[in-house]
Amino acid sequence: MEKIDLLVVGPHFLTMQGEGVGYLPDSALAVDRGRIVAIGPAAQLTGLFQAERTIQARNKVVLPGFIDAHMHTGMGLLRGLAQDTSFWMMYGLGPFADVLNANPDAVNAGSRLVILEALRNGTTTFGDLGHNMPVVCQFIEKAGVRGRVAVMIREALPRIYAPGELYEFDPAFGQRLLNDNIELAEKWHGQANGRITVMFGPQGADFASREMLLKVRQLALSYGTKIHMHVQQGDREIAQLMQRYGKRPIAWLDEIGYLDKNLLAVHLTEATEEEAALVARRGASMVLCSGSIGIIDGLVPPARAFQQAGGMVGLGSDQAPGNNCHNIFNEMKLTALFNKIRYADPEVMPAWKVLRMATIEGARALGLENEIGSLEEGKRADFILVDLLRPTMQPVFTEPMRNIVPNLVYSARGDEVSLVAVDGRVIYEEGRFLTIDEPEIMAEAQRLANPIGQAAAGRFWEVNGSNAMFMWEGKL
Amino acid sequence: MEKIDLLVVGPHFLTMQGEGVGYLPDSALAVDRGRIVAIGPAAQLTGLFQAERTIQARNKVVLPGFIDAHMHTGMGLLRGLAQDTSFWMMYGLGPFADVLNANPDAVNAGSRLVILEALRNGTTTFGDLGHNMPVVCQFIEKAGVRGRVAVMIREALPRIYAPGELYEFDPAFGQRLLNDNIELAEKWHGQANGRITVMFGPQGADFASREMLLKVRQLALSYGTKIHMHVQQGDREIAQLMQRYGKRPIAWLDEIGYLDKNLLAVHLTEATEEEAALVARRGASMVLCSGSIGIIDGLVPPARAFQQAGGMVGLGSDQAPGNNCHNIFNEMKLTALFNKIRYADPEVMPAWKVLRMATIEGARALGLENEIGSLEEGKRADFILVDLLRPTMQPVFTEPMRNIVPNLVYSARGDEVSLVAVDGRVIYEEGRFLTIDEPEIMAEAQRLANPIGQAAAGRFWEVNGSNAMFMWEGKL
Repeated sequence: MEKIDLLVVGPHFLTMQGEGVGYLPDSALAVDRGRIVAIGPAAQLTGLFQAERTIQARNKVVLPGFIDAHMHTGMGLLRGLAQDTSFWMMYGLGPFADVLNANPDAVNAGSRLVILEALRNGTTTFGDLGHNMPVVCQFIEKAGVRGRVAVMIREALPRIYAPGELYEFDPAFGQRLLNDNIELAEKWHGQANGRITVMFGPQGADFASREMLLKVRQLALSYGTKIHMHVQQGDREIAQLMQRYGKRPIAWLDEIGYLDKNLLAVHLTEATEEEAALVARRGASMVLCSGSIGIIDGLVPPARAFQQAGGMVGLGSDQAPGNNCHNIFNEMKLTALFNKIRYADPEVMPAWKVLRMATIEGARALGLENEIGSLEEGKRADFILVDLLRPTMQPVFTEPMRNIVPNLVYSARGDEVSLVAVDGRVIYEEGRFLTIDEPEIMAEAQRLANPIGQAAAGRFWEVNGSNAMFMWEGKL
Repeated sequence: MEKIDLLVVGPHFLTMQGEGVGYLPDSALAVDRGRIVAIGPAAQLTGLFQAERTIQARNKVVLPGFIDAHMHTGMGLLRGLAQDTSFWMMYGLGPFADVLNANPDAVNAGSRLVILEALRNGTTTFGDLGHNMPVVCQFIEKAGVRGRVAVMIREALPRIYAPGELYEFDPAFGQRLLNDNIELAEKWHGQANGRITVMFGPQGADFASREMLLKVRQLALSYGTKIHMHVQQGDREIAQLMQRYGKRPIAWLDEIGYLDKNLLAVHLTEATEEEAALVARRGASMVLCSGSIGIIDGLVPPARAFQQAGGMVGLGSDQAPGNNCHNIFNEMKLTALFNKIRYADPEVMPAWKVLRMATIEGARALGLENEIGSLEEGKRADFILVDLLRPTMQPVFTEPMRNIVPNLVYSARGDEVSLVAVDGRVIYEEGRFLTIDEPEIMAEAQRLANPIGQAAAGRFWEVNGSNAMFMWEGKL
C-alpha cells in the first residue's frame, strides 16, 4: 500500500477528460503532495493507497474547481450600485469609482470579499486584473486558492474626455504601471507552491500606444506568460482606434501582431462574428463575461463564433458593480441561456459545453491546462464536491441519461458546493472556511463601505443616473 | 398593550406598497390571526403590541413571499432530462412524459419535491396547473403554503399527430377533465383558511373546442375565479388555429370574448408585440416564464410590450424538465437580463420592477392582490426574511442609494432566505422545515425516479434526441 495524503471516494466523478465531461462512476481520486497521483475505479484504488485522510463523497459529485478567468476583485465593495443604467461607466460606476480607488483598504477589502464569495461557489482559480495585486497575492496565498493575476496597465490619463476627444497618453504614467506589473511578476510569478502566476494586463488597445503594447508583449514573452487584455469591448474603444489609426481594434491589433496564442482577449462585446473568428484563428483565447456584459450592455458577445473558429473560451465574472455576483454557476447558466437566445436555438451551448468552459477550456484559455482544469493524473488536485442530496439536484438519474451536469448548470444555486480543495488541501467544507475568517472579512467590508456611500453622495445626485432617479422616486 | 401573535422587528422592510418597493427602515410588522394588523416604525409598534413571539430580523430584510404564478409541479421528477434540444416536446420531454404520467405516485412525489425546493427559495404562493391537484392541495394544506390551482383541461386526445394534422377532439374526454376541475373547486376553493383557491385551466386554444372554452369561462365566472391558460405558446398552436379558424390564437380568442380581466395568459411566446399589447388592453394578465422559455425555445416573450400596454405580468417557473429549477430569484434575474438583451438596452426591466413582478404584480395577475403581494395592513402575513450577512448581499449600502434590491435580483442565490412565513405561521427557518419532512420527500423522489429512468430507456434511445447523442458520445 502506497502512503498518500488524500483519497476521495465517490459515486460520481466529472473528470473533464476527453471531449465531454469525462464521467466516471464509483471511482476514487488519489492525491499526494498537491497532485493527483491516480484516478480510477474505487475498488482498485482503495486497495493500492493508504491515505492520511479519506473523504467519502457519498451522494456527491466530484469535479474540478471552477476557473474564473476574468475578474476585477478590487471593486467588490461596489456590489449592487451600478446596474440598470445606460452609459454604465458614467452613470453607474462613475459616482463611486474615484471614491473607492482613493481608499486602498476598501479596494483590498473588496478583493477579499469577492474571493470569499467565489470560493463558496466552487471557484478555485482567480484571473484577477487590477491595481492591488500584491495584496491580492498575499490573500490568495493565505486562502490557499490559485491566482493568475495581472496589473491593469494604461497610458491614457484617467480624466473625463469630451465625446470624440482622443485620450491623452502619458508614457511616464504608463511606465509606472508597467513597472508595477514587472515587480509583481518578479515577486509573485510561481510563488505559493506555483499557485500564483502573473500575466501582463494592458487595459485595452485604446488605452496605450503601439510602443507600450509591443513592450508589454515582449515582457510577457520573456516571462513565458500571456497577455490579459480587454479587446473591442465598447464603442469608445472603436472610436479611439478609428480616429487614431483608421482601423477597428481587432484589425489594428492584427496589424501589430498582437493576435496570437499569447493573447487572452476579454469580452469582444462589440466584435462581429467575423472579427471574433479572426481572433480565434490567430490562436488567441477569449473570456466571456455573460452576466457583466448582459447587465452593462444588454449584449451577448460572439463566443460561439469564436469557438466555431477553433478558439478556446473561458468564463469570467468581471466586477461586482455591473455583474453583482461572482458565481461560476451563474456564469454557466447565463452563458447557455444567453447564447440560446442570441441564436433563437435551444441547442446552442448545451450544459456539458458550458461546464467545459468553466473548467478545462478556461484552463486552456489561461494557459494553465497542464496544471488544472481536469481531474487527471499529474495535475494539481483542485477539486470541489457538490452535494446531490439537495432539492436542486434531486432526483439523480444515471440511466438512460445522466442529469447531473444539466442540473449543475441549470438548477444549482451554488450553495450545493460542500467542499473545496486546492493543491489537495481542503480549504472550505460544509459551510466553513479553514484558512480565512468569513465574519471578519464581511465585517471589514461593511465597515469600509459606509464612508464610501457618504463620500459618493454628492457626485451620485449630481450625475443623476437612473439609480438616482429610482431613489428619488422611492423605487429602490 | 394589544396582544398579538407575532411581531417582526428589523432594519429593512420592502413592503411593495406604492409604485416601487415601498422601503421602510427600522420598522416592525405586527401579525395576528394570520393577517397583518400593522406595519410601521419599530419604536412605535413595539410600544403598542405585546406579541406571543418576536422575531428580531437583525441584518435581514423582510419582504413579501414570492408568487410563482405558473407551475406544473407534477413534472418535478424529470428535472434535468429535457434541455438543450430542439422540438422539446418530442425530443426532450417525449421519452419520459408517458412513463411519468403512468405513475401517479411519481407525479405526486414530484409536486412535493418542487414545493419543497421553491419554499427554500422564498416562494409562498403556488400557481399550479396539472392533473394531480387534489394531492397537491393536501400537501399545500399540510406544508402551510398558499395555492392557486387548476386542472389542465383538454379535449384533444393525447396521441402523436402528423405534421399539419388537426387534433382530434373527444368531448367526453374533455368533460371528464372539466369535471375534475369542478370537483376541485367544490372541494378546495377557499379551503385551508382561504389559502387554497381554484382556477379553471384550459390547456390552450388549440386543445379544446369553442364550446368547451366558453363553458369553462362560464364556470370560472360562476365561481368568481379566473382562467389560467397557455396562450400563443408555440408554432403548433398557431398552425392548429389557422387551419381550424383561419385566425391566429390571440385574434380568435378576442373574437370569442376570451381576452378580459378573467384571463391569466401564460407564455405568449409566439405573440408579436402588437398581439401582446392587445391582450393587455383587453384587461387580461400575463405570466412570464423566462427560464423555461429560454431553455425550451431560446426566446424572450414580449412581456415588456404587455406592461407598456398597461398589463400586469407575474413570474412563473413552469416545469422541472425544461427549466430545471423552481426559484423566483432565478426568474427575477433571468427576466431582467433577457429583456435587456431582447432590447439591447440595460435600462429595461430594472431590479425594482422584477421584484414587483415577483410579488405585488404577480398577486394582481392572479387576482389575489387584496390578500397578498405586499406588506400592508389587512393583508395575509406571507413574508420572508433574507439574510444580509451573506457574501452575496454584502456590503449593504443605504446611502446615497440602497443596493439591497439590486443584490436580491442580481446577486442572491436563494439560500439567503432564512425564514418563510405564510398566514403569519413560520414554516421554514434557518434551513429547517417545520411542517414537512425534507429528507423523506427527497428519498421518496429518488426512489420513484429510478424505475422511470429504466422504463423510459427504450423510448429515449429510439427517439434519439440531442441528449441521447450526448450520452452516446460520452458528453454527459
